[in-house]
Amino acid sequence: MNNSTQFGWEIIRFDGGERMNAEEEIAAEFPLTIMVNGEEFATVVCSPTDLEELLIGILASEGIIRNWQEINSLHVDKELGFAYVEIDRPFNEIQYEHSKRFIGSCCGKSRQFYFKSDVKTAKTIASRLSITVGQCFELMKQLQEQSEQFQRTGGVHNAALCTPTEMISIRTDIGRHNALDKIYGHILQDRIPLHDKLIVFSGRISSEVLLKISKIGAGILISKSAPTDLALKLANDLGITTVGFVRDNKMNVYTHPHRIVEAN
Amino acid sequence: MNNSTQFGWEIIRFDGGERMNAEEEIAAEFPLTIMVNGEEFATVVCSPTDLEELLIGILASEGIIRNWQEINSLHVDKELGFAYVEIDRPFNEIQYEHSKRFIGSCCGKSRQFYFKSDVKTAKTIASRLSITVGQCFELMKQLQEQSEQFQRTGGVHNAALCTPTEMISIRTDIGRHNALDKIYGHILQDRIPLHDKLIVFSGRISSEVLLKISKIGAGILISKSAPTDLALKLANDLGITTVGFVRDNKMNVYTHPHRIVEAN
Repeated sequence: MNNSTQFGWEIIRFDGGERMNAEEEIAAEFPLTIMVNGEEFATVVCSPTDLEELLIGILASEGIIRNWQEINSLHVDKELGFAYVEIDRPFNEIQYEHSKRFIGSCCGKSRQFYFKSDVKTAKTIASRLSITVGQCFELMKQLQEQSEQFQRTGGVHNAALCTPTEMISIRTDIGRHNALDKIYGHILQDRIPLHDKLIVFSGRISSEVLLKISKIGAGILISKSAPTDLALKLANDLGITTVGFVRDNKMNVYTHPHRIVEAN
Repeated sequence: MNNSTQFGWEIIRFDGGERMNAEEEIAAEFPLTIMVNGEEFATVVCSPTDLEELLIGILASEGIIRNWQEINSLHVDKELGFAYVEIDRPFNEIQYEHSKRFIGSCCGKSRQFYFKSDVKTAKTIASRLSITVGQCFELMKQLQEQSEQFQRTGGVHNAALCTPTEMISIRTDIGRHNALDKIYGHILQDRIPLHDKLIVFSGRISSEVLLKISKIGAGILISKSAPTDLALKLANDLGITTVGFVRDNKMNVYTHPHRIVEAN
């Protein structure tokens, strides 16, 4: 299996009435099967970059590990597309809890939606971080500039770990959840403190994205795209500031606006 | 649980230096837990429309049913977000096959990627349908016009069942796979013949999308977005014509171009 992130592909392009042969860059889609303690846990399709970080991020998102140190061994076979992880916890217990629905009154009066694994790992955020409106615009501009450098294939998603004044690291993937999981794995592997950090993201803010932000422990999420109602209800409950539709010096603040200040 | 597809949400909007309070329409995200023969099968989040079609499409995509008649009973509880399906096949067998990875040389020399359930259900398409370049542009224009009527929330995906000259039905969802599954359920429920039909789609052409098109049985897929390399390899193997990046009277034909003709 080739590990490039993009490939040339012979296409026929129609431009109005004109027909031409051309070569187009196509984003690679890489299937990675995750084996935990010798058992098949899940198969994800992803861009074949930062696979160790992706793996750590997925295992943490699913509540299987809380930190990097809980992994006894980790090996990625890029040739065959398999990843082998050994952890102390027995696998049967993991299977039982993974992706079972949980409905409870765990966050105030509204009945929210979590998977069982989320109930243990989603954290209420009490961050004192704040960011100016101008800094939000500037970070989104940087995310878009960097992503254009990375690829010419169209349609990949980007997630970046930032301070209000600086983009620290950026991860790219054909899947928006994977881009966030890579950032999460990077944070855990490098033990990066989150109290002064925020996440800048290209994708839609769904409940799953919001829950990942809560698990990561960031108090502010800034996205180019739209949120869903379920994500906003969770953001309200979990204390996360959500900013969406950041485009052309416009943006919407949906929840916990006290972290957004107007001074430029 | 409310079943509206969008909600008003109080936001703070920043437009350059100006701050204002506003109400924004937000897309609903609805968790639906699918119970098959009394056991929890999966939870999907979706837009709360066309839920029976979604359910039928998901069960067919996962290889659990081949047609609508295999479902003995189906009940959707929109209040609690649960769907109850009864089928003849025992549930243990389903669990075993669902989402297990399969790697084989099932499609020529290239080693492709399928889940076990896909190996049985993905079909090679021998459609004799053809479409002109102008008809491709026209159908994409219709998809975009219709989707703007449906919602003002941003970021939902659309899938439409079409003939070369007409859009027959369109389905919308916050998840691009769900939009396709709703169309699939609609086709199965109404027993719509596919030999003269194609699919027009707003989302990225991933391997999963391509496999759904093959299961549906359509020979042509037209998308606004980019494909991945894995999707194109599968399209080559399965005989499906893929057209992408259909925008502003431009489009790319990636696979099996014989079904695209130039006469307007």
